[in-house]
Amino acid sequence: MAPAWQDVADDKRRQRYSAYPAEWLLSQEYLDNLPEDHNAIKSMSDSDMWTSREFAYFKADGTALVERIARRDEGYTAMEVTKAYCKRACVADQLLNCISEPLFERAMTRAEFLDDYMEKHGKPIGPLHGLPMSLKDQFNIEGVITSLAYVGRAGCVAEYTSPIVTILENAGAIIIAKTTVPVSMMIWETKSNLFGTTRNPHDRSLTPSGSSGGEGAMVAFGGSAVGLGSDIGGSIRTPAFCCGIYGLRPSHGRTPDLDVETTLPGLEAIRSTIGPLARSARDLDLVFRTIIDASPWKHDPVCLPIEYTPVVLTRKISFAWSMGDSVLSPSPPVARAMNRVRRALENLGHEVVEWTYPEPRELETLFDELVHIAGDRGEGVAEELARGNEPWIESIREVVCPDSALPRISSWYALMVRQYRRQQYQIRYFREWQKTSEITATGRPFDALIQPILTEPAWKFGNDFPYSYTVLAPILDLSSAAFPVPLVEGQDELPNWEPSGIRSNGVSVIDHGLENKTHIPVGLQVIAGRLEDEKVLAVTSLISAALESLSAAETEDA
Amino acid sequence: MAPAWQDVADDKRRQRYSAYPAEWLLSQEYLDNLPEDHNAIKSMSDSDMWTSREFAYFKADGTALVERIARRDEGYTAMEVTKAYCKRACVADQLLNCISEPLFERAMTRAEFLDDYMEKHGKPIGPLHGLPMSLKDQFNIEGVITSLAYVGRAGCVAEYTSPIVTILENAGAIIIAKTTVPVSMMIWETKSNLFGTTRNPHDRSLTPSGSSGGEGAMVAFGGSAVGLGSDIGGSIRTPAFCCGIYGLRPSHGRTPDLDVETTLPGLEAIRSTIGPLARSARDLDLVFRTIIDASPWKHDPVCLPIEYTPVVLTRKISFAWSMGDSVLSPSPPVARAMNRVRRALENLGHEVVEWTYPEPRELETLFDELVHIAGDRGEGVAEELARGNEPWIESIREVVCPDSALPRISSWYALMVRQYRRQQYQIRYFREWQKTSEITATGRPFDALIQPILTEPAWKFGNDFPYSYTVLAPILDLSSAAFPVPLVEGQDELPNWEPSGIRSNGVSVIDHGLENKTHIPVGLQVIAGRLEDEKVLAVTSLISAALESLSAAETEDA
Repeated sequence: MAPAWQDVADDKRRQRYSAYPAEWLLSQEYLDNLPEDHNAIKSMSDSDMWTSREFAYFKADGTALVERIARRDEGYTAMEVTKAYCKRACVADQLLNCISEPLFERAMTRAEFLDDYMEKHGKPIGPLHGLPMSLKDQFNIEGVITSLAYVGRAGCVAEYTSPIVTILENAGAIIIAKTTVPVSMMIWETKSNLFGTTRNPHDRSLTPSGSSGGEGAMVAFGGSAVGLGSDIGGSIRTPAFCCGIYGLRPSHGRTPDLDVETTLPGLEAIRSTIGPLARSARDLDLVFRTIIDASPWKHDPVCLPIEYTPVVLTRKISFAWSMGDSVLSPSPPVARAMNRVRRALENLGHEVVEWTYPEPRELETLFDELVHIAGDRGEGVAEELARGNEPWIESIREVVCPDSALPRISSWYALMVRQYRRQQYQIRYFREWQKTSEITATGRPFDALIQPILTEPAWKFGNDFPYSYTVLAPILDLSSAAFPVPLVEGQDELPNWEPSGIRSNGVSVIDHGLENKTHIPVGLQVIAGRLEDEKVLAVTSLISAALESLSAAETEDA
Repeated sequence: MAPAWQDVADDKRRQRYSAYPAEWLLSQEYLDNLPEDHNAIKSMSDSDMWTSREFAYFKADGTALVERIARRDEGYTAMEVTKAYCKRACVADQLLNCISEPLFERAMTRAEFLDDYMEKHGKPIGPLHGLPMSLKDQFNIEGVITSLAYVGRAGCVAEYTSPIVTILENAGAIIIAKTTVPVSMMIWETKSNLFGTTRNPHDRSLTPSGSSGGEGAMVAFGGSAVGLGSDIGGSIRTPAFCCGIYGLRPSHGRTPDLDVETTLPGLEAIRSTIGPLARSARDLDLVFRTIIDASPWKHDPVCLPIEYTPVVLTRKISFAWSMGDSVLSPSPPVARAMNRVRRALENLGHEVVEWTYPEPRELETLFDELVHIAGDRGEGVAEELARGNEPWIESIREVVCPDSALPRISSWYALMVRQYRRQQYQIRYFREWQKTSEITATGRPFDALIQPILTEPAWKFGNDFPYSYTVLAPILDLSSAAFPVPLVEGQDELPNWEPSGIRSNGVSVIDHGLENKTHIPVGLQVIAGRLEDEKVLAVTSLISAALESLSAAETEDA
């Protein structure tokens, strides 16, 4: 008889913990006494667990780390950084439950090799030499389990390595761990029978979102410097938003997804794309650039032969600024972030113009119809669950199952009709965007669009998700990045919130009463054209610098 | 009451002929007495209809024409060339029935404008200045009818111009006419109730193939220098093959198809792509390059931002050479062409290695399932036919109708399964291709694959089509070009033909007994990787030159 799913899950947890050195384990007493809304990041900022050198490693972003390792600055070595990050990742998992497969030993072996290489050749092996990275569970590494959080796959060892992982490792990245995903990878939380629930590093009672939720928690907490996730409808951008970090959803065809696991094999109506999550905008660029510089089209026939072409922004930039989308306006913390970014950009002389794209409700319906996990009527997920004798998780069943309230189509002809509608929408959007050259001061169309990601910041675990503004990018395959907006209480006026609508599937607005909690991160997204990934990266850096300038000016004023 | 379809078709023909100057009309007696297998090209080669200057225009390819007009060589003007080509096109239509919409007056007006421009500026308006072109009927020109050969659309005037047409005209192209297509644009002949049957310029009793069949006849006969067609399963390459000319099927996303009519709106499982047909390899390059140099991605959101990047072949080239595909071997004339091209390339020191891609039968099934006009179960075509009260054409009904013998799927899930199979095939093909570096003398994978297009050359009109080798390129979206192989009787051994199989849909081999008719053109195709259009163009030029060298050497020997 097959073991009960609970036993498999317990075993999985035990195996995971057996990889953790005893000296890195938090005491059960400490864990038992954590307050419900424990802020893991803050609690660690003054913990005596860490040396000041380790604190410096976590404070640095990935770019700074590899620069310092490359220069052997203050004796920085891959091994020392890797060890610190493994320890941090180990603590992350204990507090946040964000690791699916720890790879600490493998990481140390790799670090040793890299340090030897450096010793021998006097230079780094590649642009990511020593960069501590994590991977969403769906990426394969030969000899490492890829469970996708299914009980029935708890011991499934991958027989090959995804080319994108090889590219990163060849460039010097060190994979610290693979991270948790929700069953189906189709919802905005990170929950499974196998791993349980992943928590938000800023508040354990809140979700880090999903489906790259383990990545969001891990990178924000500092268990890795950069992570790799995937986004079909917001699965990179919403965890970045909820965890207060950066995330890039490139256009399809830039990053190779060969031999990466997916929930919906053969789905082409809307494509999932792979991108980095990081604690700085320049880290997104570093990793994206490294991937493209490896000519992924030579490894994956789906990749486009488009070289990395840096975009340098020297002129005044014109931003479209879209507070809501006429369906629903964002909650006060998000609206405050929108106002703040506007002020930050205008302070530097850039242009910010209110603009809304056409027919957001049509877009949301199109997305539900085109991604449509019920292309297979939920049978793929149901089969996987049955294999492990595990029950449905309610919030996942609601999205995945064919009896869900979401609009569903099942015939190929109906799909073609929707795809045609999408093509028509794409043309309309393209033309309206081009026409904005008539309203900008630059005489060019907008350079990029800034808008919210979700109506509300990280929410308590539950079956309802906030309303989102994330489907535009995947439906039109536009390049898009999430960035955090650090808020300063008192400096930023809190707007009144008058929710202007309800979710199209009938779920009404959730109001989690978080308006005044400034410790909950808030972020936004920036969207450019299709295959304008380099431009999105440049603009994200520009926005990030503008926000820093604003904070600096405020501090000076105060 | 709606008029009978025969009346609409008669009216359409009358309108068309009313655009033709009386002095360009052939006598009814001449037309009535044409032999059944009349060779229109040959009959015109010594006709006193043409001046020696006009003969020179038709003998030149497009590149030579624009060069000479740009240099005003021997007084070449756009007007004189345009007039000659309009007259030639007019004769083409009378002999071959290949024009849907003559645009002679418009062409002359345009030629006048171009000559004035040249006079005023002392230089051509663009790289196609004065190039006589034709367009498959599906391209829109504001104010010109787009009927798609449907009786019910016989008077449908387009309200906008397809961006690709604007690009060509801005570069100086002169559109002489739009040309015939078969109803549905999904078969390899060119037949409709509205226009009747288009004929092969080398033998009026044979088909020019389809669906760019009007283009094939027009360009081969000399009614235009370069034409624009589209290819979803061979619709550029089979007419090029049957008419003895060149044709490029680019990868999807290079040439803009915005506002171009299609039979299957919303079909994305396999994409139709637009490409040129021409009488020389360099003409394909000229027109393709001009389109890409206009940055079509700025006009059509579906286009990829990939600049034209010329490929210069300086080294020894390694060709894969695939005589058949293990399902069916080609007929003697085609096999002879395969042998001839091998000899021509080896003579110049290039490598030619026998190689066959995996699972051709799986490919053919995949194609039938993925293109699948019955995504809409043939209802789109049926509706159009009903609108004009016109009957089905049998050979079209067989391909289009849901009760056809072709494999058909109708659910989205079944489509996803097929798309997944295609993705798996794509990876397998990609890896096997990469691995060929182990068997080539160059140490690189093959540069390109040479293979037949159809088992047999142009055939008599009927409901059966020869077996094809054309689906590989569209299924994997590979760049591909058709080129003619001029045969020399006596010089080229005629191989024995032992058909090794039957068509997968159960139709047995057609043997038209054409083995010994050397006046029927034969061609082949060359295939490279995805988005390697420039490479395919360079290789096509190389092959064309090699074949010329071989012929020259033989003539010297003789």
